[in-house]
Amino acid sequence: MGTRLGDLVDSLGGELIGDPELDITGIAPLDAAGPSHITFLSNTKLRAQAAQTRAAALILSHQEHSQLTGYAGTRVLTDNPYAYFARVAQRFAAQTAVAPAIGIHPQAWVDPGANVAASASIGPGATVEAGAQIGEHCVIGAGCHIGRNAVIGAHTLLHPRVSFLAGCQIGERGIIQSGAVIGGDGFGFANEAGHWVKIPQMGAVRIGNDVEIGANTTIDRGALDDTVIEDGVKLDNQIQIAHNCVIGAHTAMAGCVGVAGSAKIGRHCTFGGAAMVLGHLTIADHVHVSSGSLVSRSILEPGQYTGFYPLAKNADWEKTAAVVRQLGSLRERVRMLEKLLKQHHAEPPGQNKIGE
Amino acid sequence: MGTRLGDLVDSLGGELIGDPELDITGIAPLDAAGPSHITFLSNTKLRAQAAQTRAAALILSHQEHSQLTGYAGTRVLTDNPYAYFARVAQRFAAQTAVAPAIGIHPQAWVDPGANVAASASIGPGATVEAGAQIGEHCVIGAGCHIGRNAVIGAHTLLHPRVSFLAGCQIGERGIIQSGAVIGGDGFGFANEAGHWVKIPQMGAVRIGNDVEIGANTTIDRGALDDTVIEDGVKLDNQIQIAHNCVIGAHTAMAGCVGVAGSAKIGRHCTFGGAAMVLGHLTIADHVHVSSGSLVSRSILEPGQYTGFYPLAKNADWEKTAAVVRQLGSLRERVRMLEKLLKQHHAEPPGQNKIGE
Amino acid sequence: MGTRLGDLVDSLGGELIGDPELDITGIAPLDAAGPSHITFLSNTKLRAQAAQTRAAALILSHQEHSQLTGYAGTRVLTDNPYAYFARVAQRFAAQTAVAPAIGIHPQAWVDPGANVAASASIGPGATVEAGAQIGEHCVIGAGCHIGRNAVIGAHTLLHPRVSFLAGCQIGERGIIQSGAVIGGDGFGFANEAGHWVKIPQMGAVRIGNDVEIGANTTIDRGALDDTVIEDGVKLDNQIQIAHNCVIGAHTAMAGCVGVAGSAKIGRHCTFGGAAMVLGHLTIADHVHVSSGSLVSRSILEPGQYTGFYPLAKNADWEKTAAVVRQLGSLRERVRMLEKLLKQHHAEPPGQNKIGE
Repeated sequence: MGTRLGDLVDSLGGELIGDPELDITGIAPLDAAGPSHITFLSNTKLRAQAAQTRAAALILSHQEHSQLTGYAGTRVLTDNPYAYFARVAQRFAAQTAVAPAIGIHPQAWVDPGANVAASASIGPGATVEAGAQIGEHCVIGAGCHIGRNAVIGAHTLLHPRVSFLAGCQIGERGIIQSGAVIGGDGFGFANEAGHWVKIPQMGAVRIGNDVEIGANTTIDRGALDDTVIEDGVKLDNQIQIAHNCVIGAHTAMAGCVGVAGSAKIGRHCTFGGAAMVLGHLTIADHVHVSSGSLVSRSILEPGQYTGFYPLAKNADWEKTAAVVRQLGSLRERVRMLEKLLKQHHAEPPGQNKIGE
Repeated sequence: MGTRLGDLVDSLGGELIGDPELDITGIAPLDAAGPSHITFLSNTKLRAQAAQTRAAALILSHQEHSQLTGYAGTRVLTDNPYAYFARVAQRFAAQTAVAPAIGIHPQAWVDPGANVAASASIGPGATVEAGAQIGEHCVIGAGCHIGRNAVIGAHTLLHPRVSFLAGCQIGERGIIQSGAVIGGDGFGFANEAGHWVKIPQMGAVRIGNDVEIGANTTIDRGALDDTVIEDGVKLDNQIQIAHNCVIGAHTAMAGCVGVAGSAKIGRHCTFGGAAMVLGHLTIADHVHVSSGSLVSRSILEPGQYTGFYPLAKNADWEKTAAVVRQLGSLRERVRMLEKLLKQHHAEPPGQNKIGE
Repeated sequence: MGTRLGDLVDSLGGELIGDPELDITGIAPLDAAGPSHITFLSNTKLRAQAAQTRAAALILSHQEHSQLTGYAGTRVLTDNPYAYFARVAQRFAAQTAVAPAIGIHPQAWVDPGANVAASASIGPGATVEAGAQIGEHCVIGAGCHIGRNAVIGAHTLLHPRVSFLAGCQIGERGIIQSGAVIGGDGFGFANEAGHWVKIPQMGAVRIGNDVEIGANTTIDRGALDDTVIEDGVKLDNQIQIAHNCVIGAHTAMAGCVGVAGSAKIGRHCTFGGAAMVLGHLTIADHVHVSSGSLVSRSILEPGQYTGFYPLAKNADWEKTAAVVRQLGSLRERVRMLEKLLKQHHAEPPGQNKIGE
């Protein structure tokens, strides 16, 4: 009923130390795993927990293997236990997944001018406009809307109630969570005597392969050019990507991030939750922005960047915030002290200097 | 056509001082109430306004009752005027509410393997998958999606266009506003040589009784375990709850709050708008986080916590922000001054001490 | 196939200097425009780029006209080149727009008690409840929900999958992007012995003419009164407007902004992305709030206001944040130094004074 451990390791790689005949029925965290589970150690801090796990098998690095004592079960050695865990979990998830019904549900509506691959699944209540292309093995969930001339690459999965609007494209093996809106109008208006004149948004959204987009995330179409999401990008929920942005390949953003218009974000970046990027900025590759931080200037060097106000008990915050409001005058007072002290004591003793 | 005041007080409690025969047609704020309305005083600052209200009846506390002069109408005394107002308003709202049509709308789609209570209402365009259970007196609004094996408790109301995905559960008397997504995949990826490997999200979302969830709020399913929302939790709009969080009973969160993965939040907490909680933190019971504050460490003591940058005119902010960037060196300069002053005046006069 | 430039200028105004017979096929940015395009110069910094554009025609101000050398093509002079560009773009967008199918799609559901104008378009999967009024030339996109007694003014466009709930109103020429929710319940609860009692939200949302609302934006209905969005307001994506707010005419808000309950916001204001406004505040006309700034007090004077923590390399932020936490004591130390110095040197030399 489970999976033979030897077969698992044969297909996923790694070095097996122990019994290949074990029947593994699932994957679980160190502390919750039972005698038919496989578990994993990817965080050194959990080594003590690993020593006591009841799991049948443990995925761990070669380094942890040499350090870990007290665990008597079977071991699977790999360079990247967390990624190995991910692949094992994918295997078990696939075993229990329910295959979607191939074909167009009778309560979906597909325009005769749309092109739906024979192996695709279109759920109930979904609507597909003329000119849209739905690739092989795609799943379009219940209540999704696929706009005119939109293109969905093979093996891409749209969970229920996604809006994928006219002319937008996504590559292969993509996943879009429920409620996401791809291709809403960018926010473009010209001010004329106090009124806003709409700038039509004539670009689209182009999304690469292996991209995941979170629930209720929005990605706007470009004004004249396209908004671009490169291969392997992972976006969490409630994210806003404005028009004409480029998000570089394999960049990941946690929930509630916002990126303003025309920002160009590099590859292999990460953004913590609720980080914000202002418009027209450039962010280099391998930049990591901490949660809750606002990026107000371009970042041209890799590294970790942060900018949020430290939390405190409210009474303490009241005090420090009051000083923050007067920081300019506080600095002036320090300057004045330095000047006075210098006047009184023309030659400061020792090697001390008062800097500016 | 209205409600006899005496009947209202009989059913809701409180002490009536005045005419029980009054015919009350609705509830209104102090300044807008007319002679057939009931109104309420729950904020001492509005006492002067209460003295001048034209309302037929006034809900107020025993304490305010003894202070309030100038108001000649009927009074309803209660320990908690605001909660009393809420219940009165519920009564009047129920009078004008339109009962949903019982049964499955002909343009809904319900899988034959789903279990829908006879007293439930399934709106047009809604889709209900196999194995789903819809309890007695539930209302599933137009265009909602109920995933495979999901469970909706009795008397729970889903407004139009909610996504309630496979395997998730909500208890009784819940309310979910439009556009909410319950059970999207948690954001879990393992990095392998710069690429992200998806960790399948095999848990679900378990929601207790009497929970309200706001419009376009998202609650992700857990990775291995479930995400848990306990009884009586109230979530406003645009909130993001990441995978494996636990939100303790009767905690309330205002709009745009974000909670990162595996955070454990206590009971009876409140979070102001746009507050953010980082992952894997623990928040004690009765913690109150101010709007716009980022919680970056666990909070183990009850109390009010705050952390946002004070607003200023832009020019002033420019100045203070420039000092913030140099705070490390400003502190150094103060240290240096202290040191110099100590050297020059080995014995400071009086009782003053220069602290570190 | 394109548009004769002379005809364009005849209808949109401006002064044409050059060849009216040019056939213009589209609009493009300065650097991307080709010999059949019209382009525009609205930012002085791009003057050098304008000198080198290959466009057939250039929209620019009279002032830039007198400064710009090196560009030999046709010129269109106007007081507001950016607004002129917007109108030209609207013309080209209209040429390629696909007219929606007039009438009610067979897979829409419209209650017999709804009132749909003959010239309106109701998309597949849309649902329209009893008493709703859909004006002339309205477009209700696929999967939208129009609640009971809701009113949609003439020429208003709802993109797919909008929730426009019971009793809410929008004027003429409005645009609502996908996933927006208009009229969810406001977040109102009275606390009673640790539990939350729901305050029914009996108001609605009233939206003026020429309003645009972004994707997945939410606007809650009022508790007793209505939430009001005045004429010409433009809201970007993922915005949260809480119950009983008033947003003044021609105010614009960028993505991810949040406005808490009962805030009254003036006319002609702008809010940068992720700005937040606390509840019950008043914001004057012509106030501009920078991105990422939290407004915690009323703003009664026009101007630009800012309040976000400046970004830094993480290590630098760690240092400055540590000082922020001790700002109260840092100020104390400066006070002490001032006092000491005054005691030691009763008469400070020169004209320097130590301020408080």
